[in-house]
Amino acid sequence: MEIGFLGLGIMGKAMSMNLLKHGFKVTVWNRTLSKCDELVEHGASIAETPSAVINKCRFTIGMLSDPVAALSVSEGKGYIDMSTVDAETSSKISEAITSKGGVFLESPVSGSKKPAEDGQLVILAAGDKALYEEIIPAFDVLGKKSFYLGHVGNGAKMKLVVNMIMGSMMNAFSEGLELAGKSELDPSTLLDVLSLGAIANPMFAGKGPAMLQSNYSPAFPLKHQQKDMRLALALGDENSVSMPIAAASNEAFKKARGMGLGDLDFSAVFEAVKSRKH
Amino acid sequence: MEIGFLGLGIMGKAMSMNLLKHGFKVTVWNRTLSKCDELVEHGASIAETPSAVINKCRFTIGMLSDPVAALSVSEGKGYIDMSTVDAETSSKISEAITSKGGVFLESPVSGSKKPAEDGQLVILAAGDKALYEEIIPAFDVLGKKSFYLGHVGNGAKMKLVVNMIMGSMMNAFSEGLELAGKSELDPSTLLDVLSLGAIANPMFAGKGPAMLQSNYSPAFPLKHQQKDMRLALALGDENSVSMPIAAASNEAFKKARGMGLGDLDFSAVFEAVKSRKH
Amino acid sequence: MEIGFLGLGIMGKAMSMNLLKHGFKVTVWNRTLSKCDELVEHGASIAETPSAVINKCRFTIGMLSDPVAALSVSEGKGYIDMSTVDAETSSKISEAITSKGGVFLESPVSGSKKPAEDGQLVILAAGDKALYEEIIPAFDVLGKKSFYLGHVGNGAKMKLVVNMIMGSMMNAFSEGLELAGKSELDPSTLLDVLSLGAIANPMFAGKGPAMLQSNYSPAFPLKHQQKDMRLALALGDENSVSMPIAAASNEAFKKARGMGLGDLDFSAVFEAVKSRKH
Amino acid sequence: MEIGFLGLGIMGKAMSMNLLKHGFKVTVWNRTLSKCDELVEHGASIAETPSAVINKCRFTIGMLSDPVAALSVSEGKGYIDMSTVDAETSSKISEAITSKGGVFLESPVSGSKKPAEDGQLVILAAGDKALYEEIIPAFDVLGKKSFYLGHVGNGAKMKLVVNMIMGSMMNAFSEGLELAGKSELDPSTLLDVLSLGAIANPMFAGKGPAMLQSNYSPAFPLKHQQKDMRLALALGDENSVSMPIAAASNEAFKKARGMGLGDLDFSAVFEAVKSRKH
Repeated sequence: MEIGFLGLGIMGKAMSMNLLKHGFKVTVWNRTLSKCDELVEHGASIAETPSAVINKCRFTIGMLSDPVAALSVSEGKGYIDMSTVDAETSSKISEAITSKGGVFLESPVSGSKKPAEDGQLVILAAGDKALYEEIIPAFDVLGKKSFYLGHVGNGAKMKLVVNMIMGSMMNAFSEGLELAGKSELDPSTLLDVLSLGAIANPMFAGKGPAMLQSNYSPAFPLKHQQKDMRLALALGDENSVSMPIAAASNEAFKKARGMGLGDLDFSAVFEAVKSRKH
Repeated sequence: MEIGFLGLGIMGKAMSMNLLKHGFKVTVWNRTLSKCDELVEHGASIAETPSAVINKCRFTIGMLSDPVAALSVSEGKGYIDMSTVDAETSSKISEAITSKGGVFLESPVSGSKKPAEDGQLVILAAGDKALYEEIIPAFDVLGKKSFYLGHVGNGAKMKLVVNMIMGSMMNAFSEGLELAGKSELDPSTLLDVLSLGAIANPMFAGKGPAMLQSNYSPAFPLKHQQKDMRLALALGDENSVSMPIAAASNEAFKKARGMGLGDLDFSAVFEAVKSRKH
Repeated sequence: MEIGFLGLGIMGKAMSMNLLKHGFKVTVWNRTLSKCDELVEHGASIAETPSAVINKCRFTIGMLSDPVAALSVSEGKGYIDMSTVDAETSSKISEAITSKGGVFLESPVSGSKKPAEDGQLVILAAGDKALYEEIIPAFDVLGKKSFYLGHVGNGAKMKLVVNMIMGSMMNAFSEGLELAGKSELDPSTLLDVLSLGAIANPMFAGKGPAMLQSNYSPAFPLKHQQKDMRLALALGDENSVSMPIAAASNEAFKKARGMGLGDLDFSAVFEAVKSRKH
Repeated sequence: MEIGFLGLGIMGKAMSMNLLKHGFKVTVWNRTLSKCDELVEHGASIAETPSAVINKCRFTIGMLSDPVAALSVSEGKGYIDMSTVDAETSSKISEAITSKGGVFLESPVSGSKKPAEDGQLVILAAGDKALYEEIIPAFDVLGKKSFYLGHVGNGAKMKLVVNMIMGSMMNAFSEGLELAGKSELDPSTLLDVLSLGAIANPMFAGKGPAMLQSNYSPAFPLKHQQKDMRLALALGDENSVSMPIAAASNEAFKKARGMGLGDLDFSAVFEAVKSRKH
């Protein structure tokens, strides 16, 4: 099975490498071509433009921040956008592709660098059902599970809902760590206690120790998390859903952005939660 | 090793049964004596008053809502309060016991009925260190892990911090379920997606399906959760810790209480989060 | 001085009538022409299209929900938009007019029906400074005070800031009324007490008694207030300003919208604040 | 009419002086006796202990932080507590006095130094109705209006409700000032615009200019405002009233306290609202 792959950022590189390792033929393109080298060593072909990739391959996966490449998709081609775009942009891409006879699958993923490398992403697919079924072999390599969620936009929405819950949880966690520390409890003991109970989860376990050392090297930048909170709240606005906890969390992320922490990991909201002397 | 046990509610019965099954000699007392029957069948002795239990046993564990029994503790006796009381009450009990020559260990637990039955509680002990070390064999039977947290009050505080995070998470979760439903996503698919990602946790997995069926049979009553949120916020107040997410969550629990849901499970806050027609 | 006037809704009618009464020559247009009758009785001329008005008059004031009419403005003409549009739309109108040689003044007003009738509006002007100075005689009739706020967009922004504070105040007021009522205090006595103190203001005095009778006939519809809260929060988002009180207030307005109260007065958020039985 | 007066702080001094100036005979006591000098010059008598005052006068007004003096009240004496105490303390004082045959009127005031000097306080009386009617001549001198609110505790509660609304309004105001400043609007122009509209109020007018200069000399200390927010939220908790705006405002005041601003004016919450660089 031949697959085109556009965009070799942290995620894209790990994903295309996984496809190669599992026997897929992969043709890649990246704005900075040198990033293709390691993939070529593992057997990938290179194309010079996105449209060259799309023309060559029946299926092309996009991991691009700029969706304009998708406009080259035409009759008989399938485009699977695995980047995170908002529902509106996704619908526009879908219309552009469909109007030219192509088929489109929106497929944002849940999971960051490590799950991408390990083929353990969660794939939130929406759009052309037939394309979804054809691409399943690739999804099986990239993720531990894929969901087909219906019409285009639903993948983006599902991701927003998940990230909104995650953002509120990060705030709840930060408040708990701060309360522990200020109440003469050892915050690292709190981590141990949490790890054994009903709310134990990989995020607390993974990020907690680093947070206690004010280490916020970015796995998911705070400014992106805040953008997702804003978009989730906007989705709630459209549907008259009142979400006071998400709204309060969003303001905490804004506070952190105002403190200049937008490029750090989203767990840096802990710095905005901390009590401060004037 | 002989242990007295006061209070055979849901938790106390499961815990004392575990002690019996693991070879401890147990003398029990309960306000309603008939609740002792099953334990007697398994080998427990009965005493007619709390002070009779305390006089007979070197160590007595209390799971009582009313801490007055603890006042019988005297010279050479150890009292381990495993109920959930606030730090202030705990300190008063401690003073009363210590002034009479007894020793005291505050030891609230994290975990409800099932973990109590399975000996999988998490024990948050604070107070007399020597008593903690002596009672470890019993804690090993009752819980999967015990923590010694320092002076009296720290066990209560640690439990409040954990429950505060839990309450905020339940709100974040409820908002996500409602947003999904109102945005034409299947909330039960959201549960599946969440179960695979970085914020997967036993509470979402355990309570989510029931919540989607408006099933809120109480494991931990909402009014108790709201009380813990209030006390956690008060602890923050004492220490000048600002916690906007916990505060917003507390108000949601209050809204639920105002809707008459205080005796249902705390997950019933979902009903307060849901959009409603006038 | 001759002035064109587009749009004879509640506000536009009162404003154009004021201009007539103070000796201005006024040419009006309205989508539903019959609404012009009363003004004609007072001496107004009618034009059949917006562009006919604009061509005839050196200055045209717009009170239209749809800003497309502004595109007819050309060389030598001044257009004063006194409706409430967002900063972005205002900038687009400005560019369109300026590119054709016209001049533009964004001039949203603070105040509703009564102040419009009484010539007591507050005018928040921004854009062409010379046009502002030329139109002052009209502003003196329409309002009790006008402000020149600099470049286009600043009028819209100032109005958002004011409405945001107003929306949060309405929530604070509603919570106070509800707390009084539920605490066995007479909410109407609270109104009296408030009227005598440091936070006495016309909004509490004007809307309070009606709110206590669940009378929410719309002076400013809740859905518009909520839109302004959303836009103010978005303005804060752009500038990394964290505003937790506005955010919580916005969610209360959303809750009210979800209850079907969007077309009532924005004071109907009181219904969302009230405690309810299940 | 002879009146005893206990406590000559900023408020008490102004109030007792007003009574003297209007022809009341006044006997004063203060912990630091030298504070009585100016009153003596204006004709006041001095007593050496609170109970000496109470024994001498049929009516005694208390403006004391410590209510223990009230316990001297006996048969035939009336005690009017015009300090701000919580409802629970007030009830205890009432019981103590009533049990000894005295009568009690809780009468906290709304208004600070200037209104006290000008006899423009608002008096929130509750308790013995007959005592209220007897003391009206004094209330007429001290305040511009007095309210009789029913049983003891209602005065304290009414004051809490008013202060809660005030605290939320101060937060809403602070957010607006910060949003204006960060959006390239002149915050002092915002003050002008606000002064002309439906939400114009003495607090915005009085405190706004000082806030823009970071001048927070205390008229009402932030830590007291935050205490009142906390007590108002607790009152809501008792009555199942959910108040998300007050809760968010309380957290902002806590944040300010954590920044070390508790002794400044409550308008210093503006410092906690401001965006900050890391």
